[in-house]
Amino acid sequence: MTTHRILPLPGYTPTIGRLVAMLDYARETTLAAVNGLTRAQLDHLHDARSNTIGALLAHIAAVERGYQLVTFDEREPSVSETAEWSAALKLGDRGRREIQGHDLQFYIDDLRRTREVTLAALAQRDDAWLEAPLRIAPGLNAHWSWFHVAEDEINHRGQIRWLRARLP
Amino acid sequence: MTTHRILPLPGYTPTIGRLVAMLDYARETTLAAVNGLTRAQLDHLHDARSNTIGALLAHIAAVERGYQLVTFDEREPSVSETAEWSAALKLGDRGRREIQGHDLQFYIDDLRRTREVTLAALAQRDDAWLEAPLRIAPGLNAHWSWFHVAEDEINHRGQIRWLRARLP
Repeated sequence: MTTHRILPLPGYTPTIGRLVAMLDYARETTLAAVNGLTRAQLDHLHDARSNTIGALLAHIAAVERGYQLVTFDEREPSVSETAEWSAALKLGDRGRREIQGHDLQFYIDDLRRTREVTLAALAQRDDAWLEAPLRIAPGLNAHWSWFHVAEDEINHRGQIRWLRARLP
Repeated sequence: MTTHRILPLPGYTPTIGRLVAMLDYARETTLAAVNGLTRAQLDHLHDARSNTIGALLAHIAAVERGYQLVTFDEREPSVSETAEWSAALKLGDRGRREIQGHDLQFYIDDLRRTREVTLAALAQRDDAWLEAPLRIAPGLNAHWSWFHVAEDEINHRGQIRWLRARLP
């Protein structure tokens, strides 16, 4: 029997637990979408304006780190963080030039380490925090921010599936 | 100020309201992604195995109708519903052949009418219903099912953005 449920999870307040169930499910589908890809496949460029699947995986981790800063640390990225992450965050030419030569495990480790930080921080917070306006961006709350992290990942997973189906 | 918040919404129990906020946000981004497309652009085929943007929009509405049946009506689609929806649900060859010639408003109306049914049904249900096992698929609950409707939409919105950027 296929089992997929969104429910409160042990270790988190109820609404945070449901959100973690969504983040986890989205991640599971991303990992399934790239399962078994070689380094050459991760570096393959479908056309001159595409992003590689590897760069999209790096982007997914970078977006998550960005929202960790905004929601947990309540600050914008520093100059050095911006420099370090911008190829993955902005993709495009710099992403095509700078993100390559890694095998799948490199990207999976990056995603896993980033997610561990997210889950540890979410476990220390509660549902009131989740839905309060963000201190540095009061038009947003953490619930939207973390839904958006899942949403951006799913958006790119859709592209990864499309690109994977057309690998040479 | 950009405002995006996931919060309980008036007219729904709290967890259903948060879910509706996610469904609404996902839909808003889909509509933005197709804004202004002409009939020819909606029917354009990027390559022989692609789906048109129009077919992806029809698919998004069809998936939503499918989950209405499973979660609200607690039944599988009938033979005639399956026949009517299968080009949009399964896409591929039949989708390419059968879904074409419509302007953007056709797809938007289909999405809007489908969403109205969803919201009316969700407004009549509560959070206990949302997280109980589905009667016809006890490995799933309605919360996962409706998250999945948003997730499938976002996945295809990622593809729509990719395809739109490459329209002739």
